[in-house]
Amino acid sequence: MKKKTASVFIASFLLCSLIPASLYAENEGAKPLSKNLIVLIGDGMGPAQVTAARLYSKAILGTESLHLDGYYVGQASTFSERGEADGSVESGMITDSSAAGTALATGRKTYNSAVSLSNEVVAKPYASVIEAAEAKGKATGLVTTVRITHATPAVFASHVRSRKNEAAIASQMLDSGVDVLLGGGADYFTGKEAGGKRSDTTIVPDFEAKGYSVVQDLAGLKALTAKHDKVLGLLGRSHLDYAIDRDSSSPSLAELAGKAIELLSAKPEGFVLMIEGGRIDHAAHANDLPTMVKEVLDFDAAVKTAMDFAKKDGSTSVVVTADHETGGLSLGRDNMYDLPIDLWNRQKQSSQMLNAALEKARTLDEIRQLVQAHTWITDLSDEEARFILKGDGTDYEREGAYNAVISKRLLAGWSGHGHSGVDVGVWAYGPIADLVKGKIDNTDIAKAGAKTIGVDLDAATAGLQAKYWYPRFKTAPGGSVVYPAKALAAELGASTEWDETSGTVRFVKGGTTIVVSLRDGSAALNGQAAAYTVHVDKGTLYLSLDAFNALSGLSMTWDPLSERLVRKAG
Amino acid sequence: MKKKTASVFIASFLLCSLIPASLYAENEGAKPLSKNLIVLIGDGMGPAQVTAARLYSKAILGTESLHLDGYYVGQASTFSERGEADGSVESGMITDSSAAGTALATGRKTYNSAVSLSNEVVAKPYASVIEAAEAKGKATGLVTTVRITHATPAVFASHVRSRKNEAAIASQMLDSGVDVLLGGGADYFTGKEAGGKRSDTTIVPDFEAKGYSVVQDLAGLKALTAKHDKVLGLLGRSHLDYAIDRDSSSPSLAELAGKAIELLSAKPEGFVLMIEGGRIDHAAHANDLPTMVKEVLDFDAAVKTAMDFAKKDGSTSVVVTADHETGGLSLGRDNMYDLPIDLWNRQKQSSQMLNAALEKARTLDEIRQLVQAHTWITDLSDEEARFILKGDGTDYEREGAYNAVISKRLLAGWSGHGHSGVDVGVWAYGPIADLVKGKIDNTDIAKAGAKTIGVDLDAATAGLQAKYWYPRFKTAPGGSVVYPAKALAAELGASTEWDETSGTVRFVKGGTTIVVSLRDGSAALNGQAAAYTVHVDKGTLYLSLDAFNALSGLSMTWDPLSERLVRKAG
Repeated sequence: MKKKTASVFIASFLLCSLIPASLYAENEGAKPLSKNLIVLIGDGMGPAQVTAARLYSKAILGTESLHLDGYYVGQASTFSERGEADGSVESGMITDSSAAGTALATGRKTYNSAVSLSNEVVAKPYASVIEAAEAKGKATGLVTTVRITHATPAVFASHVRSRKNEAAIASQMLDSGVDVLLGGGADYFTGKEAGGKRSDTTIVPDFEAKGYSVVQDLAGLKALTAKHDKVLGLLGRSHLDYAIDRDSSSPSLAELAGKAIELLSAKPEGFVLMIEGGRIDHAAHANDLPTMVKEVLDFDAAVKTAMDFAKKDGSTSVVVTADHETGGLSLGRDNMYDLPIDLWNRQKQSSQMLNAALEKARTLDEIRQLVQAHTWITDLSDEEARFILKGDGTDYEREGAYNAVISKRLLAGWSGHGHSGVDVGVWAYGPIADLVKGKIDNTDIAKAGAKTIGVDLDAATAGLQAKYWYPRFKTAPGGSVVYPAKALAAELGASTEWDETSGTVRFVKGGTTIVVSLRDGSAALNGQAAAYTVHVDKGTLYLSLDAFNALSGLSMTWDPLSERLVRKAG
Repeated sequence: MKKKTASVFIASFLLCSLIPASLYAENEGAKPLSKNLIVLIGDGMGPAQVTAARLYSKAILGTESLHLDGYYVGQASTFSERGEADGSVESGMITDSSAAGTALATGRKTYNSAVSLSNEVVAKPYASVIEAAEAKGKATGLVTTVRITHATPAVFASHVRSRKNEAAIASQMLDSGVDVLLGGGADYFTGKEAGGKRSDTTIVPDFEAKGYSVVQDLAGLKALTAKHDKVLGLLGRSHLDYAIDRDSSSPSLAELAGKAIELLSAKPEGFVLMIEGGRIDHAAHANDLPTMVKEVLDFDAAVKTAMDFAKKDGSTSVVVTADHETGGLSLGRDNMYDLPIDLWNRQKQSSQMLNAALEKARTLDEIRQLVQAHTWITDLSDEEARFILKGDGTDYEREGAYNAVISKRLLAGWSGHGHSGVDVGVWAYGPIADLVKGKIDNTDIAKAGAKTIGVDLDAATAGLQAKYWYPRFKTAPGGSVVYPAKALAAELGASTEWDETSGTVRFVKGGTTIVVSLRDGSAALNGQAAAYTVHVDKGTLYLSLDAFNALSGLSMTWDPLSERLVRKAG
């Protein structure tokens, strides 16, 4: 016993030294550092977002600090990989939520828009810490204030080339084995016939068939107990209400998080739970400072819920971070060295909600009356009212212009409606803290999480890659789905040769040869004419799946919903 | 011996826990944690400034990270105290360099513009960690790329109500006992007769008389050896050149820092050294991203110099932070998710230097030619050229407009030319690291530094306050200097009574009474007419010093250069 205590001290000392803790050391057979892992992600919560919430909390609520503040351990870089298609940049290095989420969930960099896939022509799936934990029998959960099919929850339990494919994400969640799913997004679980957004069918009954209890309101959520093994909570058709707009029927993130922890912590094998404050990002995209500050505080309350549980539980690691900064927020602008924080509390609803009324206004006076009714502003100038009426020239239109007017008075600066590249904070509690302290990269969060609970991301990734590939594809004029021939052939171990004289491309694997003529679009398998679809676009040759199956001897099929090749059924 | 080792482990373990380390615990008689302390301050180096430098360094220089990155331990809040005078706010809560510097040097909050003084009508001096270290016999040094009399170095070795009083700061540095002073600012050590800015006289000979070796160029600096006990290095009349504009005659911050460490580390009692990267701030104020990035890298090289020494020395703590963010910098803007970092390297000199030429331009073509000659831009539009010719409407005029044009192409956003309120990073090495990790306030940096080297800020402050007070003052119409009567009387322990019937104010201390008539401006000491200067301004009564000396029995004098009351000579 004494020896054990001493070694704990020594281990803590070593981990505490300034030599970066190795996240890659062998952990085979070692006892996991924690049984449970909670990952909290403040979407869009850059450094200024946190400072803003603390200043507000201090000035208006009289609290000395955020709950977060006591757990600060480091900062993370967030950049994504450039993604290129057809010779042009489709994704730059300032990350979106899906590339950053992929890093946080799987420990891998990728291109913007990718949901836990590699940045390749034939993309491969990367397993998340949740998927790896399931392989080890742990319970798992995803909680968010946005659609459960939105990028951040999606990266933990699904794989698609484009985050916009939310119907596929919902379907993959059905197969994911995640035990507790709480958020918005009912529309992507509901067919068009029932008012939803799915072109196939409503998949809620499929969840029920798999043993999920489905709840659609706060009362249903509250009624859940630990005997409910699996829960699908769809608490809104799209995103949940902003904290500033919430009434008593809308759950706070802390309520969602508390319920998820209650359900998951009953499981003996331990659990992994991701909790997202998803709408900090939305308010910051809109440049709506008062709404954003309340979203950060809503997230901060969920951090307290998680930390309180972890402290009581004794075998839970918690890590908190952001995926990126949103809005290019600056606290202070126009050479003024002050912040009128008392005014930050005097907008009565989100600009999104106000915008419904703003959009209907036809005169400067109507604009002026709306602003006066919902803020402290009684002296809106003609110029300001005219600007709001006209819109800010972006997709945010009048809402953007309204926020520009408000932000100038709140002394908040924004560099646009997009994301920015600044490093984000990292907060932690429990054994994971030593693995994520200092200056890290966002990919280190996933690696540290996996190490903490003793799960193997690489093995889980290998399992997924044996089943699915996600190639780029096109639909050829005849309606066939076709794939980039050279890239997919290479992945299948076939060689590609271009013969200029004959204008043919020859693919060879073992004793199998396919020759495609670019002159007449014909194809031949081992010298026999073959009815493959041949398509050329921007200098790239595409072929239909039958060609690749013939070449490889495989029986791959195409999953049109998830837009993936199924390499192995099952 | 064994016991000692175990206690070190235990102490480290406790300090490493997430419970905030107490900076306030009794340290009486305890062995200091380090013999030497180096404090590095990146002026204006907010989170985005650091990320920008890392991204640049990676993309252009091929380095994986900044030297700083390996030492990240936390973040510090930076807000200053609101300062009010005559009922209006003179200083808001977004800090300037003097209020932030005061916090970093002395552990106390104050108003913007104050140099290590309290935020009071009768301000009191706060001792810095350098002043406290001197009292303990340690060698001390200040190194900067700006004028050595600028706010950040000033707060460590002087006390004035306004940072603009740089002549007083230079004079106080002469009396400060600081051993090594390296920076720019020769103008404030030189009388007007010799082309300087001092209205009194050149004080360089006074430094020589006190044993300082004075050097004014890089060759002189390089020739200094450890036998030079005291050094005043004035390497420019004002600030030193930006890194981007430097030729071989201008020192880098790392060269200045290396020389200061060489000189100070020869002293047996240990040393305290402050090293400022002072022009990150200037480039960010101007919104000149390429110049700013190179200033951060220049600072980062000095961090390496300090860390290399500390690792070799074994008894040195190093702490690195920023005083505030400058410019409201955002990496990314206008809804673009990319950063064209290759362009960040293609401006050939600072905008400040280019501005000399821009200011002389008279036509759009001249503007276009200048921009083309000094950047990669060959397609400046008429609108852009016209904007530069017109200026940006701030004090930065054409330089500001040029940087606005450039920054749009570099995808860097700025919220203005001022500071912003975001938390800044903290990096550390050695025993101080455990005292400054997590989310701290900037005042904790000074407290941690004092604790690390075992010096007493409170005792040093008490010593200073016994000697000097810094009241607000005015010059009355007759030319006398007068002081706010009620506030100064209260500080002297006298009571103040206002008698409305007679229109008089009565000050009483012990057996002494002074009565001032606001009707006729007369004054009486114990019933006898007294020739004090009586002045009323905006409802506040001011009296000349003879009144306060009579009331208190003291013989205070007025130091007009440092604008302070000398309570006790010498």
